[in-house]
Amino acid sequence: MADQDDTSNSIPKSYGLLLFPQFEVLDAAGPTELLNILSGPFEHSEISLSVIAPTKDLVSPAPPSGVGHQVLGQQLYQPTHSFADAPPLDVLIVPGGRGTARSDEEMRDVLDFIRDRFNGSGGHAPLKYVFSVCTGSDLLARAGVLDDRRATTNKKAWSRVTPHGTKTHWVANARWVASGRVWTTSGVTAGIDGMAALVGKVYGEDLADRVCDFIEHVRVKDPASDPFAEMNGCKDVLPQRQ
Amino acid sequence: MADQDDTSNSIPKSYGLLLFPQFEVLDAAGPTELLNILSGPFEHSEISLSVIAPTKDLVSPAPPSGVGHQVLGQQLYQPTHSFADAPPLDVLIVPGGRGTARSDEEMRDVLDFIRDRFNGSGGHAPLKYVFSVCTGSDLLARAGVLDDRRATTNKKAWSRVTPHGTKTHWVANARWVASGRVWTTSGVTAGIDGMAALVGKVYGEDLADRVCDFIEHVRVKDPASDPFAEMNGCKDVLPQRQ
Repeated sequence: MADQDDTSNSIPKSYGLLLFPQFEVLDAAGPTELLNILSGPFEHSEISLSVIAPTKDLVSPAPPSGVGHQVLGQQLYQPTHSFADAPPLDVLIVPGGRGTARSDEEMRDVLDFIRDRFNGSGGHAPLKYVFSVCTGSDLLARAGVLDDRRATTNKKAWSRVTPHGTKTHWVANARWVASGRVWTTSGVTAGIDGMAALVGKVYGEDLADRVCDFIEHVRVKDPASDPFAEMNGCKDVLPQRQ
Repeated sequence: MADQDDTSNSIPKSYGLLLFPQFEVLDAAGPTELLNILSGPFEHSEISLSVIAPTKDLVSPAPPSGVGHQVLGQQLYQPTHSFADAPPLDVLIVPGGRGTARSDEEMRDVLDFIRDRFNGSGGHAPLKYVFSVCTGSDLLARAGVLDDRRATTNKKAWSRVTPHGTKTHWVANARWVASGRVWTTSGVTAGIDGMAALVGKVYGEDLADRVCDFIEHVRVKDPASDPFAEMNGCKDVLPQRQ
């Protein structure tokens, strides 16, 4: 396990939010809201955000057609950057959603972007943190980012996602898992608690508490507090022997 | 108090999400996520959503400049409708945010839209429900929608917002308040619990529970469960004698 990255001097400044077709809206908005509060009312003007997608076209959380399209298809997000012109990043936030179930071929540009930025490539330094919400960890697993790491994912998607990380210790009873510079959270609203924990690690727990109070969110502070693992019958999945 | 609207036969189908400059991101995304789950995985194909703003220009949660702009200014939402061409609505969702502190003059078109749709005008039937999150209730108050109603708002904005509803009983100890067809919630994440309660009222508590389980959200089910009222020293404000 590679849990022991040195993150002690890692005050992240440049955040990126990755969007792709059929992402989950609240996976993206939850962690982003904490950054909004941090940078606005709490005046942490050192941080910046880029909203990054495969191209600069509007991104929708909707499937191309079918169920839910009348609701999801109306939510349209304008990226600020494409993969081609995304700036240097310290943190990449990766939401989940139905789009994560698309094939490696369909998601190749997304997986390449995650892998390249995590490892550092093309003149970019490696990310200080990658932070996934919900089935965003499926993309991290398929990009190789979760090899030799502990991680978690959405508990309803457990049996679909965990086989994609055969070198990963999948932790069932987890609201979030911090494995060095790789942070993964459980489903949707777990992204709020996970990002609060990351804010706490970087800036101290007092500020994380005050940011959560500001949005009237009662924090889950224990990463192992997760009623949804048992509810969905999830068990830890250990790395396969090499 | 006008708490006794007959909402018993009110299965809402057409939802509108109101956006305006400097809205709060999670106020909008929280309730919308529940509609996404309801319409997608739970296949409630009877519901539709429109994203409505003063014009069809991109809407940003950012102030024109200054603190937080590097983060907030990167989040850009494409409305589907302007006030001029918004479709018939059963429910209007009104987020809060810094934009609610703008003057009546600056917010006239927003206040007019809320008032007209709530009361019914221009050939549109009155809303079955108006649903505000956080300081969205400031807009409802200034539009006259909260007259003779019970309501709540963000607990950090209590002393700013409550004077705008002089005919309102402002309930301090409230995660949300249902006052007939007028639903108001407390700050930001309270919008998730409030919308879950509205889903529960319309479709039954079992479905509301399952939608919240799906997004791994532990519901606050008691509308009077609100640690943030005491934390911020908020007390009930009664309607002024006429």
